[in-house]
Amino acid sequence: MTTKAVVLLSGGLDSATVLADLAAQGHACHTLAVDYGQRHRAELLAAERVSRSLGACSHKVISVDLRAIGGSALTDDALAIPTELDEGIPVTYVPARNTLMLSLALGHAEVLDARYIGIGVNAVDYSGYPDCRPEFIEAFSRLAQLATKAGVEGQPVAIETPLINLTKAEIIQRGIALGVDYATTVSCYQATDEGLACGKCDSCRLRKKGFLDAGVADPTRYLTR
Amino acid sequence: MTTKAVVLLSGGLDSATVLADLAAQGHACHTLAVDYGQRHRAELLAAERVSRSLGACSHKVISVDLRAIGGSALTDDALAIPTELDEGIPVTYVPARNTLMLSLALGHAEVLDARYIGIGVNAVDYSGYPDCRPEFIEAFSRLAQLATKAGVEGQPVAIETPLINLTKAEIIQRGIALGVDYATTVSCYQATDEGLACGKCDSCRLRKKGFLDAGVADPTRYLTR
Repeated sequence: MTTKAVVLLSGGLDSATVLADLAAQGHACHTLAVDYGQRHRAELLAAERVSRSLGACSHKVISVDLRAIGGSALTDDALAIPTELDEGIPVTYVPARNTLMLSLALGHAEVLDARYIGIGVNAVDYSGYPDCRPEFIEAFSRLAQLATKAGVEGQPVAIETPLINLTKAEIIQRGIALGVDYATTVSCYQATDEGLACGKCDSCRLRKKGFLDAGVADPTRYLTR
Repeated sequence: MTTKAVVLLSGGLDSATVLADLAAQGHACHTLAVDYGQRHRAELLAAERVSRSLGACSHKVISVDLRAIGGSALTDDALAIPTELDEGIPVTYVPARNTLMLSLALGHAEVLDARYIGIGVNAVDYSGYPDCRPEFIEAFSRLAQLATKAGVEGQPVAIETPLINLTKAEIIQRGIALGVDYATTVSCYQATDEGLACGKCDSCRLRKKGFLDAGVADPTRYLTR
């Protein structure tokens, strides 16, 4: 019997790889992108492209306006995107982002009667975000079991994090093996509407280094400077 | 030193009482209402009224369109609001609602540097929702500790549920003692835009019975039939 999975797509490289991984496991994948007022709206377009190119069963976009609470360089125009890797938790951290993303995926999974949620968190090249660690995922799994009708009835949702212990280079190698076309993805924190990457932000640096380390040609379209 | 608290307001009786309770404890309260596409929009107006009448420091509304995923009579026009109390989890259950509300409150608390989140969950007259039980709240507290910058730095947010073990009548008695004007609140699942209650849905029935059991005059404005 085919099982259903909800896969959170950001439009970036990691979540595209998660989708390819869960699809390869035989799950019928339903993708979900969250429009949280991010500056880099090119990612939402990329998410739709990724969903289509990897043959997902459906794609939904849920809008939630995190600009109402602010607090992150990704949603607050008053904060600049840093171009240097900082120590500690960076200003691009969006308060409670993964908690919120997983909550929305949990609601979607419950309506679809899906038993899996895929998310591209990564504890290796994780940029210092607290909500990318294995212990966070475990705590969310426990919560999901108690929070939902399906969980109460003995059918809890499992949170799948196939990338959690991989380096960026390993993620790229796995994705290439699974047929992901990374040209469809956008990782840059300040991509243009056309999906051109700045090449300078944390996210661009990690991505660039990943392709280099993986020995794979980088298909990213960078802004010409 | 005054501590900050984020209080989730639905516009209903319970969350108004939570706000009065946390304010009476001396917290500087910042209220948060979530516009999740609920049919009963009168509740959002009520939330603002409650925030003002109980002297909250600020009031925010975050919009998240749960109609994109459907699955509840409260957000899906194709499902009828029941007028009889059913066994089990009712169709008015909104998938992962409290998980989502608490996630948004957690993000807001993190930005404000608030140490408390108040939510009006109740395990006594709880209508059969899985995400109103003490074990759910405990699991969310654990998650909050791991999910946020403040939690990682040893300052986790505490989830305050002052109503969790009270009957509706006891909630009303506490609120009256704290000066809550329940005429500002709306509980009905299908209230009119003017805030008139149907008197028939689960929520109206619980509320009516609460005032009766508490021996307090019911200030609810019902639709005249």
